[in-house]
Amino acid sequence: MKRARIAYSGAIHEAAPGVAAGSLRLADGRVVAEDAVVWLPPFEVGTIIALGLNYADHAKELSFNAQEEPLVFLKGAGSLIGHRGQTRRPAGVTFMHYECELAVVIGRPARKIARADAMAHVAGYTVANDYAIRDYLENWYRPNLRVKSRDGGTVLGPWLVDAADVAASPQLELKTTVNGRVVQQGNTRDLVFDIAFLIEYLSGFMTLQPGDVILTGTPEGVVDVGVGDEVVCEIEGIGRLANTIVGDEVFGR
Amino acid sequence: MKRARIAYSGAIHEAAPGVAAGSLRLADGRVVAEDAVVWLPPFEVGTIIALGLNYADHAKELSFNAQEEPLVFLKGAGSLIGHRGQTRRPAGVTFMHYECELAVVIGRPARKIARADAMAHVAGYTVANDYAIRDYLENWYRPNLRVKSRDGGTVLGPWLVDAADVAASPQLELKTTVNGRVVQQGNTRDLVFDIAFLIEYLSGFMTLQPGDVILTGTPEGVVDVGVGDEVVCEIEGIGRLANTIVGDEVFGR
Repeated sequence: MKRARIAYSGAIHEAAPGVAAGSLRLADGRVVAEDAVVWLPPFEVGTIIALGLNYADHAKELSFNAQEEPLVFLKGAGSLIGHRGQTRRPAGVTFMHYECELAVVIGRPARKIARADAMAHVAGYTVANDYAIRDYLENWYRPNLRVKSRDGGTVLGPWLVDAADVAASPQLELKTTVNGRVVQQGNTRDLVFDIAFLIEYLSGFMTLQPGDVILTGTPEGVVDVGVGDEVVCEIEGIGRLANTIVGDEVFGR
Repeated sequence: MKRARIAYSGAIHEAAPGVAAGSLRLADGRVVAEDAVVWLPPFEVGTIIALGLNYADHAKELSFNAQEEPLVFLKGAGSLIGHRGQTRRPAGVTFMHYECELAVVIGRPARKIARADAMAHVAGYTVANDYAIRDYLENWYRPNLRVKSRDGGTVLGPWLVDAADVAASPQLELKTTVNGRVVQQGNTRDLVFDIAFLIEYLSGFMTLQPGDVILTGTPEGVVDVGVGDEVVCEIEGIGRLANTIVGDEVFGR
């Protein structure tokens, strides 16, 4: 099963795919066009945990050696937007890149959970686009808030797909297109630290709560995106997450 | 005015100091003993932004040179506890330290706010104890989640003090005691990057929202604390925040 969280007609609703293509069925029974709603992140998001350099090819692309323990950092809730939202490219930067990532949503509290038990704590999956402004990246490699926690810098959705509908060790194709051109491809089988390991590692020192989300990192293939570009991150069986890059003029200042 | 957020008799309440010492007056009119309630963080906490090395003396103590822009990082919401809570010392570590910090609570959305207008976005202040496990600190200096986002690692409270009751450029004495012995002293006048600057800086790339909180950093004087220690962080005019260090045995595993 999969569900979205959308705003329509003055309220926020859970929504499922409608029978007709391009339609949504709201929890209250109404059927509406996908285009007529505002897509929000598909669940109430708690702590946003992100992985750096968790595909060996991408780490190599950025000239880092593989690390011994996961490079984890947090993103601010203010950076969240849903499917079809706008992400702002700051004026004057030279390198803004998307990152297509499998997002793992926690469903049950997890504290000191062994690897073998970890997947039982996963509620489901969604697609994340974890933007970064490369210009602001420093030497120290756990990224600055200016790189990663900007408004619109964490796109999530469109669907939360139940864990029951996904293999326990997901081997899913990831793909990003910019204006229809494929720029990034990978497969979650190539994660350096897999999902079960990450839950074991994180739950060793912090209790993961329902709604917490782990953005598992991105494979190689990051290129600069500019104002007007449509960026689509797609993960096999999980969803197709689109958003658009806009410039300062949209924001007035 | 100042207010706490406490749990009592099956619900969460806003509370003010009672007339009698050691009493609280709940919003519904009941007067209860401070000891009879569970103190929560004094407001609904959004994004937790923390400053590293924001007092020159502390940066020197840790052998860092002063930085050119603020060293900011995020802490997870799961690390939050209130006044009189317990913070766990992991087995086998050699250096756990408290950090007494003035916490600035945002009251109005702030986006690209100039320094001169920044203080109008502050709702108030509280005291933070921003624990760190020094053992896990790496060379890269923006701290790992294992250092900073552990359960119980962000203590906030007891009171949210209205900004109207605090000077616009607060010059407040900070003091930490461990089992009654003074171990840390400083004054917020010695902040490397002051509150107005931090709001200008952060709001330049992320919209600060009501409930977001900035932990402004700690002065020198960090020593190891152990199981059974009572740690009290006190800021002049803001509050006296106590908590206790406990060991693994309290948690069963």
